[in-house]
Amino acid sequence: MKKILNDPKNVVDEMLNGFVYANEGKVERIEGTGVIYRTFQDEGKVGLVSGGGSGHEPSHAGFVGEGMLSAAVCGEVFTSPTPDQILEAIKKADQGAGVFLIVKNYTGDVMNFDMAQELADMEDIKVEKVIVDDDIAVEDSTYTAGRRGVAGTVLVHKILGAAAAEGKTLEEIKALADRLVPNIKTIGVAVSPATVPEVGKPGFQLEEDEMEYGIGIHGEPGYRREKIKTSKEIAEELVAQLKKAFNWKRGDRYAVLVNGLGATPLMEQYIFTNDVHALLDREGLAVDFKKVGNLMTSIDMAGISLTLLKLEDEGWLAFLKQPVSVPAWA
Amino acid sequence: MKKILNDPKNVVDEMLNGFVYANEGKVERIEGTGVIYRTFQDEGKVGLVSGGGSGHEPSHAGFVGEGMLSAAVCGEVFTSPTPDQILEAIKKADQGAGVFLIVKNYTGDVMNFDMAQELADMEDIKVEKVIVDDDIAVEDSTYTAGRRGVAGTVLVHKILGAAAAEGKTLEEIKALADRLVPNIKTIGVAVSPATVPEVGKPGFQLEEDEMEYGIGIHGEPGYRREKIKTSKEIAEELVAQLKKAFNWKRGDRYAVLVNGLGATPLMEQYIFTNDVHALLDREGLAVDFKKVGNLMTSIDMAGISLTLLKLEDEGWLAFLKQPVSVPAWA
Repeated sequence: MKKILNDPKNVVDEMLNGFVYANEGKVERIEGTGVIYRTFQDEGKVGLVSGGGSGHEPSHAGFVGEGMLSAAVCGEVFTSPTPDQILEAIKKADQGAGVFLIVKNYTGDVMNFDMAQELADMEDIKVEKVIVDDDIAVEDSTYTAGRRGVAGTVLVHKILGAAAAEGKTLEEIKALADRLVPNIKTIGVAVSPATVPEVGKPGFQLEEDEMEYGIGIHGEPGYRREKIKTSKEIAEELVAQLKKAFNWKRGDRYAVLVNGLGATPLMEQYIFTNDVHALLDREGLAVDFKKVGNLMTSIDMAGISLTLLKLEDEGWLAFLKQPVSVPAWA
Repeated sequence: MKKILNDPKNVVDEMLNGFVYANEGKVERIEGTGVIYRTFQDEGKVGLVSGGGSGHEPSHAGFVGEGMLSAAVCGEVFTSPTPDQILEAIKKADQGAGVFLIVKNYTGDVMNFDMAQELADMEDIKVEKVIVDDDIAVEDSTYTAGRRGVAGTVLVHKILGAAAAEGKTLEEIKALADRLVPNIKTIGVAVSPATVPEVGKPGFQLEEDEMEYGIGIHGEPGYRREKIKTSKEIAEELVAQLKKAFNWKRGDRYAVLVNGLGATPLMEQYIFTNDVHALLDREGLAVDFKKVGNLMTSIDMAGISLTLLKLEDEGWLAFLKQPVSVPAWA
């Protein structure tokens, strides 16, 4: 394992301290927890909380700030945060209008956010939530019943963040989230595995000329392993899977997110984006919003995921474009 | 070579097309060139142009937009753009108040930007420039006489961009740049090499347990090769080198940039930032601005660089903090 680290047991603690220092004045950490919250207070507005295991930076703490998340709960690497920590985040995020939770669909996260919601109910904080399950690669995975939650979650942060900033009520945000999430679908490819620092070796093996479609952001198995293909061929496969899942028609409107998994440079991400562009043009889709970069990573995994959001509602596009002030969304 | 690519000869062309698509409406490309320019027009203001070889993404095109660069000239990978392309960028950037060039100190870049400046003079466009040579690791390197220009260049983009947006004249920007650049110093470490797609193999070799201090962003040799150290030890070495170069005293005010070289995840960058924080605190420095992320990369090199900017002028801090609208600065 060749990493710039100190004690592998302390990576999350040290990383969060470094993150808070880097964004001093804008975010703080609740001492003794993995909770990062924004110093900006939006009184009377709904608070948004997300989180999960660490290792997906900049998710989720990088989206804490004005216009997106109120707080993020950061668990140990690839490990769900505990209900008491999620409760701390909920309390911090509550500005009198309730708190909305954005949870990626992993069994541990779903259970712990659920328990935190019950604990918050007992303290008379109104809490609602949505489970994001955008990964169309496989059903039922190592840590998941149903479909996994991956990069599309960041679009949920962005859209609900803008809705909350605009003053939408908890009920309105819940209704928006329930309409939004089924319109987001993601599929990815990995060309090299991630190494969890405490484990010290890669979570799976790929030969020097192999890649795997559909690998999860914790290295969960995908759906097919092949000799490495060109960017064009990879784009064709991923777009074909998304086409099947959406069953789109010419003229449909979409937002596109090309996400780097950690070690894949922007050079490759933009080349892949160029190939996706050609394919979506050929399909006759209207793409009104695009985002490219490392938004939901898997530590140092190399690979890419492609997310499409069907823009069923004009308002979603406006929410995507609304300027924000957070560390990881320019 | 395990990369998501098509023809290795076309990486820059395809990448730039992907970049323009991703940022549609905000940037455009001059057809047949590697020039990316902003659609936002700042009439009567000084235009800022930077550029150089590709492979350092998001530098420099990611900083084109409102409040930073007017245009970026993107050469082939690790290869200076030609004078005629730089001239095209200058013409596009000129809004009647002249154009200022920000050039990293590599022999090819210095020569080609110089020739472009002469060509612009013949077309009666007033052009001034600054050469950035912030890398304190070595004197005279593979492609450089003097010190190399590296990540600190992005701070020059940011500060001069804010000054230009505020309406400073070409002469004022030249004076600001000449004061600013000597106050910026950078030093880095690489733990694994970059692979240029057309070459197909890494530019140098490092053993599985080795790292090298002072490697350049094109893989130029550094100053010492060692067994890989902890983040704390690496931070100690880099801060010690910077201390020697700045000869600082307690209470001096600085801005800090921790830059990932491409394949190093944010997790490691924030851990390293946390170690830098402790050391700068111990030195009694006042750090008023921090930035962490992949800003000046070397394709898929793994490693980190540390840049310090001595804030000699109160105005520099205000310029750093001024909001911008560009793809790669949140």
